[in-house]
Parts: sequence; C-alpha cells; structure tokens
Amino acid sequence: MSVTIKQIAADLNLAISTVSKALRHSHEISSETRIRVFEHASRVGYKPNPYASSLKGKKSGNIAVVVPEVSDSFFSSAIDGIEEITQERGYHVIVYLSHEDIEREKSIVREFTNRRVDGVLMSVAANGVSNEHLHDLIEQKIPVVFFDRTCEEIKTASVLTNDFESGYLAAKHLIERGCRRLLFLSLDTNLAIIRKRMEGYLKAISDHHLDTQFNTVLNCTQSEPGNLESIRQALTTLKPDGIVGSVEKVTMQAYTTCHELGIRIPEEIKVIGFSHLPYAALLNPPLSTITQPAVEMGKTAATILLKALDKRNASLSGETVIIDSVLADRRSSAR
Amino acid sequence: MSVTIKQIAADLNLAISTVSKALRHSHEISSETRIRVFEHASRVGYKPNPYASSLKGKKSGNIAVVVPEVSDSFFSSAIDGIEEITQERGYHVIVYLSHEDIEREKSIVREFTNRRVDGVLMSVAANGVSNEHLHDLIEQKIPVVFFDRTCEEIKTASVLTNDFESGYLAAKHLIERGCRRLLFLSLDTNLAIIRKRMEGYLKAISDHHLDTQFNTVLNCTQSEPGNLESIRQALTTLKPDGIVGSVEKVTMQAYTTCHELGIRIPEEIKVIGFSHLPYAALLNPPLSTITQPAVEMGKTAATILLKALDKRNASLSGETVIIDSVLADRRSSAR
Repeated sequence: MSVTIKQIAADLNLAISTVSKALRHSHEISSETRIRVFEHASRVGYKPNPYASSLKGKKSGNIAVVVPEVSDSFFSSAIDGIEEITQERGYHVIVYLSHEDIEREKSIVREFTNRRVDGVLMSVAANGVSNEHLHDLIEQKIPVVFFDRTCEEIKTASVLTNDFESGYLAAKHLIERGCRRLLFLSLDTNLAIIRKRMEGYLKAISDHHLDTQFNTVLNCTQSEPGNLESIRQALTTLKPDGIVGSVEKVTMQAYTTCHELGIRIPEEIKVIGFSHLPYAALLNPPLSTITQPAVEMGKTAATILLKALDKRNASLSGETVIIDSVLADRRSSAR
Repeated sequence: MSVTIKQIAADLNLAISTVSKALRHSHEISSETRIRVFEHASRVGYKPNPYASSLKGKKSGNIAVVVPEVSDSFFSSAIDGIEEITQERGYHVIVYLSHEDIEREKSIVREFTNRRVDGVLMSVAANGVSNEHLHDLIEQKIPVVFFDRTCEEIKTASVLTNDFESGYLAAKHLIERGCRRLLFLSLDTNLAIIRKRMEGYLKAISDHHLDTQFNTVLNCTQSEPGNLESIRQALTTLKPDGIVGSVEKVTMQAYTTCHELGIRIPEEIKVIGFSHLPYAALLNPPLSTITQPAVEMGKTAATILLKALDKRNASLSGETVIIDSVLADRRSSAR
C-alpha cells in the first residue's frame, strides 16, 4: 500500500541512493533532481519517516518561521513570500508565534535544538532583552536568518528595510504638507527597527529646525486600551497636527482615537504609518503608508537560508540585505 | 550545564517519574501538577529530547493548526484563541498553511502520521475534493478537531458558527433596509460554510418573495484580479442595490470596485460581509459585518482537543459545537 523509495527510483529511472539523498535535501544532489523527486513523491503519496532520518543526523525538511504575531499584515505577507520560495524546494514551513513574549520565544527556540528543523527564519519579540536562546541556536549550527526584527548581537544574515531613512521620509512628508507639531507613536525601543524609525523621525525634525518641545515621541505598548488612552491624552494636550505611526497597530489606534474625538483627518491632523495593510486605500480617509516590502523580504530571507542549507557547512556570515520601503501618498496626509 | 528531570523533581519536591510523566503530558498526572512542572521547566531552561520520547510512542507536546492562510483576520484571531488555551497547558502550537491548495494540505497532513504532533486543529482548504489524507489521520488515531471549515464526511468533533442563519440574517438585514436586487459574492461551494451561507441567503430571498432573477449569486475564486473583473461586470450589468460578501476578501474586493466605479455606499448600494476585520469601523464607509466568534471558536476547538488528549483513548465522537455570529450594523448598510 505505501510507496517506497525503491519504487520512486524506478519510476524516475534514478538510483535508490539518489532518491534517498534527494528526499533528505542532500547538497550532493542537484536542485533540479531534488525538485523532480519531491514532485513525484508528492504525486504518488510517499510518506517519509522523519524520525528515523533525524536520528541519523539527516535533515528534517522543515523550516521554522518565528514571528511575534500573524494579525499584523507585515508578518502574514512575509510568510507568503517565504512559502513561495520554500515550497518549490520541497521544504515544509512551520510557523511559531512568540506573541511578543520572550519566555515564549525561548521555549519555542528550545524545540529547535534537537534537529527538528533544518533552519530558522525569525523576527524577534519586542520585549526581548536576553539572547542566550539565540546564541544556543548558532552554537548548535542551526542556521538562522533574521528578517525585519533582528537581534543585533547575533552574527548571522539579516534582511531589513531602510528604517532610519523611512522614519525620516515619513516626518519630512508631513512637514512638507504643512505640519509643525508632529507626534511619533513609538513601540518598544528595545527593537532596533522602532529605534531606527524614531531616530530618522527625530533627525527630520532637527534638519527642518522644528522645535523639539512640540515635536515629540509617545511610547506605546502592547496594550490596546492603554494605547488608546495615552493617544487620547496626547491628542487633547499636545494638540499635534501630524502623526507618524511606527507600526500598523498604533497607527490604527490613532485613527480610532481621531474618529472618537471627531478630529478630522487630514484637515486637522495628518497621519502616516508604517504598514502593509492591504486595505489602506479603503480606510476613512485612505491612509498614507510607509509600505514595507514584506513579500520581498520573506522571499529574500528564505533564499539566503536555503542557499546556506545547500552547502555542507551551513554557517552564515553577518551579511545584511536591505530592501527599501515605499511611501504611498494617500488622503490622510493631503494638504 | 543542562537541567535534568532529576533536578526539576528535587526543586519541586516531586518524584522523578511524576515529572517525567508530566513533561510527556501524561493523563496520569493532574493538570495542576503538569502546569507547575511546565512552568518550572521553562523557568530553569529544561530541554527535552522530543525524538527519544516520540520513538517510545510518547507524546510530542505539539498541537498542529492547519489553516488556509493567516492574512484573513478570522484565522489569525482563531489562532490567538487556540494559543490562549494550549499555552497554559504547556503545549506548543505549530501553524501550517495550506494556501487553499489540497495537494499542499495533503503533504502537510502526511507529516503528522509519524507522532510528530499529538493532535490537529484544522480548517480545510477550499479546493478539497478528496479526503483520504484526513481518513488516514483518523485511522492512525491522531485526534482532529475541525473549526469553521469542516470536512463533513470525517466523523470527529467540529466547532462551527451558525452559517445558514447568518447568511439568512445578512440578506434579511439588507432587504429591511430597502434593497430589492441583492448579489451574493460566493467563493468555493465545495466548502460547507460557503454553501450554507449561500443557502441562508437564498432562503431569505424566497421568504421575502423577491424575484430570484434579480437576486443572484456571483461565484468568486481565489484570484483577486479575476474577482475584481467579475464584480465590476456584475455591478455594471446586474446593477444590484445590495451585496452580501461570503468572506472578508471578496467583501473588500466589492469595496474596491465600488470605489473605482464611483458607486456610493450605502446611498447607491449597501454592503454587508462575513468578516472579523478589526478595522471594519475605520473603513470608508464603516463596514457592516457578520462577525464570526473567531477567538471563541479557536478556544473551544483547543479545549475539546486537549480534553481528548487527557484521556487514554483520544478518540473524538462526531460532536458539533455551534457558536453564533453577531451582526454589526454600521454605515455601509444604512438606509
């Protein structure tokens, strides 16, 4: 009833050892042959025994993707990009959610140190301060590629976007549209990406000689009710005329608050936010965004990881690939 | 350097066998003790050897969640609900995406038949016609709980919402607001949930004695450009005055098309859609929705699965839990 490697080899006119190696993603077999073997194996319903081969120190065929959440459209789009690349190579993608909780992230990563996964694509949790769990992975020679949210002290490949420049661009955009009292909605500045976006924002304030007393930063958290309350206070006391949201969630919380308080966008306040929201153009009003190249970033990270896995020694240097974000100018920041 | 079971037992003043069983999620140990053991093990950085225990036929501690995608807010919210339950019990949730592709779903499910996961929570792919892979799971005594999208011929537990009644309610809502030419945007009628929503819609049309010639169904697909084109045609030729979207994506595609064609919502056409979109109230105009109890459905499915796993014989009967959806009345369907 069950299909054997022998049968696949006969069907494809290949040596049994070739099929066996191909199914273990061995670098000794050309990628065309591996793809052929995987396609045929999938067609005929071949069931590998992952535990047997894992214990022999072979590959599992699994790529782990660790992200804080999937309700942010950046991460769901990045996963789409990752799967586009891994699928054609016969790898399974397994998604783990840290929910922005470093303890959870540690417990997830601990799972990987037993040859359960061949490699890891990761965007770290916002509240991460200790990184031993990531050092452990590198020590165990499990290749890791960071995308978007990197851990700077771990030396491995990263795929990032131009966060500093985009933070600068967002602020400059609002200043050019007439704003003089900006507010940056920050998140957790432990995250390099948030820090860089904020630094870019502050540089634009300074370059345009705006008063830093009236162009400030509000630290938001993971708590939605807490953020709504502090945004409400900031809007009524600081009376900003422009908002830069550092991530999708806080940007939408600013929208919600403006709607509630009856503050008209863009007439009374202009808004731009970092977001990959597919429905940005359908919002009231359409939201200007710094659109991150989420799908491209996922594809690039996966490509780097698979290239490393193809080599006998899957170590990754500290290379960083930067893919630029794009400003989408919509009505929320119109004059 | 690495923490042993012996040490955990000493720390907690428990027998070694108790800790060992607790870490394997054994039903012989009370759930309070298991939670205590997991919390402590996580705190001290205990690393289990999953392969060793898996080969002995013990549990892996992993729950697989198989969903078509995570860019639909229903699925990302359902996963949040699932994790809320599984986390406190020390289980890991692993997310697999089928991308609405039955071949991919089969290949994912094939992975589970080697004791890699203890149980499966699943929402099936839309284009599924053959179900042997699901029968295989049941045969191998891996418990499966369906949520939202069920496979009707597999006898196991399901957590659903009241799709027929909600389809009826959505149509009735638009009829009461004055619509006389409705259009239902369907998806794949292989999916029981879509079929039921459509049947509810058609029943409301018939109960209100509306002409079925002018109150029709448009079959959408997974292709966004294709859908935009067919919705555009339907809007210009059929000239409906009300739209019921069967899922979030097609509803947003209807919004996009109305914006493009300059058809004003709700003045010229009223819209309601099945959706769990957190930003529905921020859309232009705010979107009336049939809001599915996504988080509740995820929590309930996980609870049923864990209860089955606690028993020696983890078989599940054909029980079905139905949690009602709620109509959120917003401006898109206003008079």
